[in-house]
Amino acid sequence: MARERSLVKQVGQKVPSRVGGELRVGIGDDAAVLRLRGANDWVISTDAFLEGVHFLAAHPPRMVGYKALARATSDIAAVGALPRYFFLNLALPSSRAGQWLDEFLRGMAQAAVRFGLVLAGGDTTKHQLIALNLTVLGEVKVGRAVLRSGARSGDWIAVSGRLGEAEFGLRLFQRGLHKKSGVRKLMQKHLQPEPRLAVGQWLASSGVASAMTDISDGLSTDLAHLCEASEVGARIWAEKIPVVSIPAGLRRLGIDPLRLALDGGDDYELLFTVPRRRAPRLPKKFRGVPLTIIGEVSREKTLNLVDARGRTKPLRPHGWDPFRKRS
Amino acid sequence: MARERSLVKQVGQKVPSRVGGELRVGIGDDAAVLRLRGANDWVISTDAFLEGVHFLAAHPPRMVGYKALARATSDIAAVGALPRYFFLNLALPSSRAGQWLDEFLRGMAQAAVRFGLVLAGGDTTKHQLIALNLTVLGEVKVGRAVLRSGARSGDWIAVSGRLGEAEFGLRLFQRGLHKKSGVRKLMQKHLQPEPRLAVGQWLASSGVASAMTDISDGLSTDLAHLCEASEVGARIWAEKIPVVSIPAGLRRLGIDPLRLALDGGDDYELLFTVPRRRAPRLPKKFRGVPLTIIGEVSREKTLNLVDARGRTKPLRPHGWDPFRKRS
Repeated sequence: MARERSLVKQVGQKVPSRVGGELRVGIGDDAAVLRLRGANDWVISTDAFLEGVHFLAAHPPRMVGYKALARATSDIAAVGALPRYFFLNLALPSSRAGQWLDEFLRGMAQAAVRFGLVLAGGDTTKHQLIALNLTVLGEVKVGRAVLRSGARSGDWIAVSGRLGEAEFGLRLFQRGLHKKSGVRKLMQKHLQPEPRLAVGQWLASSGVASAMTDISDGLSTDLAHLCEASEVGARIWAEKIPVVSIPAGLRRLGIDPLRLALDGGDDYELLFTVPRRRAPRLPKKFRGVPLTIIGEVSREKTLNLVDARGRTKPLRPHGWDPFRKRS
Repeated sequence: MARERSLVKQVGQKVPSRVGGELRVGIGDDAAVLRLRGANDWVISTDAFLEGVHFLAAHPPRMVGYKALARATSDIAAVGALPRYFFLNLALPSSRAGQWLDEFLRGMAQAAVRFGLVLAGGDTTKHQLIALNLTVLGEVKVGRAVLRSGARSGDWIAVSGRLGEAEFGLRLFQRGLHKKSGVRKLMQKHLQPEPRLAVGQWLASSGVASAMTDISDGLSTDLAHLCEASEVGARIWAEKIPVVSIPAGLRRLGIDPLRLALDGGDDYELLFTVPRRRAPRLPKKFRGVPLTIIGEVSREKTLNLVDARGRTKPLRPHGWDPFRKRS
């Protein structure tokens, strides 16, 4: 039997992949067959996760597996849907087909169980670099998906969690500081991010959010995407942003938490807008996750940052953009 | 505006991507939203198409775009479904973001129009090699998808078209013979393969096929996959296989057409089984595509090749397997 088939089987044995419910045919055939009934809308998102671009060869394989699926599932959280099925295309060098793959699948299985996802299909192939591609399907009540395009002038702008934590973890990792005692918790967001599924689903089902996206490329960049889709602008109050808390012992690194919060990628927090009349329904926390109003939508199509003294300056998208050289 | 967004827009402008029907939200948001109603099953397949593995840097970009989508759509043909929507994840070096991308999208748009596909989402990112990932959705009448697992002992085994033509085209390309006069037609299958959508849909809707797959890795390998899924074996009659016809002027290359037909990849013809009682309904041609019985399903779980003199020898899967060194 060809080795490729046995790799696909290995994936199916280690990651939840049981056929049932809508999933009539899963991994191992030419296509998955889904019998989709009922009154829900289905949402689909596809996400690439590439060695040297989205993760480094030095990253632990278990983290790569967890994070690949977490990232892809964050797009489902970002429209307020419930994740259901996923497809994995896995390209990797032969040298990674043993222990590396084993640990990778362990991390991915952990994420799949946590997010309620079942593997419905995919493929494996040999490649000189590890290249992952995830397709995730979710469902949401008809018409309840929260889009990027729903923000209106006057809406509040809010975020979940704290921003800049993942970027801070990456900086510690790059400096080899991630194994020091006391920084484990600081590494969590970088190594094992949590798509905000419960928050997203509540914001969608309650109708509290008018627009939403996830912060994958950095607040400044993802806010620009949301505003562009909604044809609006934004004013953000710098001092309201829940920024990463840098322990006293690491301040010598000279890292500015506000810059991390504005331009750091990989947080997978939610960025959403709330019409003022619905703002009283927005709790300060939802299932332990802080929800913080950080600004307001403006009719004028510019992005501005207001500092503690009330001075306004343009907020430029300086987050992650693979086609721009980073400064 | 970030360059990545403008790349996504460029893709959306050049490839059919209009929202409508079930597609409520398409490219540009975190996820596509599909309102899937009616009595059909939905089929989904994902496919990687990687530089250095599935195509070469020297291949014309227009062909890369066409073939990437043709390959992915062949999986939809292989279950007998109608292709509807697709997602494109495109990783490429900055140096390919100009004219190369333009030509690539032209080829992909041509394929999308031909196959009736609408782009529903995707992403672009920078990478040192070109890495494409396609997700294709199709629909088929409830319960009519033809799986790999439906073959039963005694069924006839049949194929569409001619086998080995794509591999022959690849060999000509590798030898730099593809621009010689008179070989253009021989290159067609390698450069611009045709998923057998009409044949697949007819085999599914008529109920004539009991099992089906597409020949992407070579007859010997894909037959092994089908037999494994069906828990059966097969006897193939070598002289019945419709092999590539090698022009007299190229016979000096010493290429064996039977070997190309057995082990050559990329043909994207259909391999299917037909219960004997339904065989009278199988035409010799369907819309110009030959349909040829080449063997029979056996209870014994081995694959055998019977030559013109009636001698039987084992048929080993020697088709494309990315994790095995090719001889």
